[in-house]
Amino acid sequence: MIRIAILGYGNLGRGVETAIKQNSDMELIAVFTRRNPQDLKINSNASVVSVDEIEKWQDKIDVLIICGGSATDLPIQTPKYVKLFNVIDSFDTHAKIPEHFENVNKNALESGKIGIISVGWDPGMFSLNRLYANAILPNGKDYTFWGKGVSQGHSDAIRRIDGVLDAKQYTIPVESALEEVRTGKNPELTTRQKHIRECFVVLKEGVDKQKVEQEIVSMPNYFADYDTTVHFISLEELKKNHSAIPHGGFVLRSGKTSDDVNHIIEYSLKLDSNPEFTSSVLVAYARAAYKLNKENQKGAKTVFDIAPCYLSPKTNEELRKNLL
Amino acid sequence: MIRIAILGYGNLGRGVETAIKQNSDMELIAVFTRRNPQDLKINSNASVVSVDEIEKWQDKIDVLIICGGSATDLPIQTPKYVKLFNVIDSFDTHAKIPEHFENVNKNALESGKIGIISVGWDPGMFSLNRLYANAILPNGKDYTFWGKGVSQGHSDAIRRIDGVLDAKQYTIPVESALEEVRTGKNPELTTRQKHIRECFVVLKEGVDKQKVEQEIVSMPNYFADYDTTVHFISLEELKKNHSAIPHGGFVLRSGKTSDDVNHIIEYSLKLDSNPEFTSSVLVAYARAAYKLNKENQKGAKTVFDIAPCYLSPKTNEELRKNLL
Repeated sequence: MIRIAILGYGNLGRGVETAIKQNSDMELIAVFTRRNPQDLKINSNASVVSVDEIEKWQDKIDVLIICGGSATDLPIQTPKYVKLFNVIDSFDTHAKIPEHFENVNKNALESGKIGIISVGWDPGMFSLNRLYANAILPNGKDYTFWGKGVSQGHSDAIRRIDGVLDAKQYTIPVESALEEVRTGKNPELTTRQKHIRECFVVLKEGVDKQKVEQEIVSMPNYFADYDTTVHFISLEELKKNHSAIPHGGFVLRSGKTSDDVNHIIEYSLKLDSNPEFTSSVLVAYARAAYKLNKENQKGAKTVFDIAPCYLSPKTNEELRKNLL
Repeated sequence: MIRIAILGYGNLGRGVETAIKQNSDMELIAVFTRRNPQDLKINSNASVVSVDEIEKWQDKIDVLIICGGSATDLPIQTPKYVKLFNVIDSFDTHAKIPEHFENVNKNALESGKIGIISVGWDPGMFSLNRLYANAILPNGKDYTFWGKGVSQGHSDAIRRIDGVLDAKQYTIPVESALEEVRTGKNPELTTRQKHIRECFVVLKEGVDKQKVEQEIVSMPNYFADYDTTVHFISLEELKKNHSAIPHGGFVLRSGKTSDDVNHIIEYSLKLDSNPEFTSSVLVAYARAAYKLNKENQKGAKTVFDIAPCYLSPKTNEELRKNLL
């Protein structure tokens, strides 16, 4: 059994707990929390432990899945805990990945542990598909579409507007743009042509709808470059119809191997729950971290550095026989 | 520069020649042939050499891409030439992959070379996607649809019928079945529900159409389990409208992470030329063979055993910065 621990019990941590139950070669040993352990109710028999005690668990855990946020948690936590454990994170600030990798790598090489960073679906499975498709079709063009799904960042941006009680924002790919890419015409698409944004907003009492709507659609970076629709709804309706966290998207590469010979490679995800799917990817890579460490490998890794067979509970013989 | 040679100059060999021109870190050194080299015209400046001379080229070539057929060529050629070179093949007889792997592995371990087998899109990219999706969603169901594309085996089966001059068979996925899978309902689909078969047949003069049509649609294994349509056309029409070799297909996994929380992972290919795309995958894995051998690795490998970064001409730093 691969002994897993979770650091941080938010949406992602709960998703990891759920995913481990689907993998019979793994068990959840502990959930580490910054909260008072007595106050945390979890959905399994694992121990709930203050993060202050984490050092004592070094011999009881094979892989620590770090479920913190990319903004402030992971840049500190992942380099710190790779000194003690094999770790996985879902660091998703694309621009800071090289720096994060170096920080984790330095400590992982010293401790002899594995640290797999930026695991999930983007970065993660989408990145993998970009890499494979680029290697196969060097003469081509990449397209990524996100959605339909909830953008946490955009929802938060609306919530910060004066007079807004709550909000959910959906990013929606433009179907006709997707279809055009699939024809192999390699269109140049503007931001506005690729995605639309749909917002469901609950206002505080007496607030001017038109003013808030104008503030949303003209917000730079978040909405100004998109066609955005705003719906004002009640808090009850928001809770009833918009409490799920679906997401997904499409990665396409359109490329030629010779004149007029075109190929389309398309990968897509349609996810009922963004955190539960991301967690499932984290758990598969936790298995990889365990196996790599057993082979005495060490250092920081990304999804690019790990052979697919490491993700599976099956032996290489079984994989060749049944999945190849 | 990675120095490549091709063994066998059919559709696949010509595709490899074309693909190498798109990869600036590679050059085609030689084409080995069983024909008289003087009789073979190729589309590049590489040497055309009798396969009887192949041993003399050991120091001039980094990777040999073996472009023979799976039925009789590859089971002999790949174990034989991995004694001399790093090799790649596209062995696609699924049931015999374990045996082929063992044969190649034994000789590769002795020679210290790399032998990557069963490279292409199925087996190959489809297999990879099955593996990743199974590891991420252990509680789910796999679906593979092929087409729209030309099935060489089914076209050959029609050509063997008495009275048939030439024929092309297209395998076509049933769109409504694909759509049902995408809903997450996990349908049980029969062979007939997944694919239809469309045949374009040229008859010899005076042959009975009805008799041939009946023979096609009732042919066991090939057509009897499918809804098959047969069109009789002229040789001119066949050459004009059915000389391309398109193919493609869809690999889907539909899985749950908890009650009522479903996810769909879908990978699809739409290929104008089956051999040119397969060749492009072979060439990407030739790069991997070269890099692995430089690290003193040896033995047989499949796409499951090779970390994605080995396929790319970019450095790991570049990949993390630009594709992750």
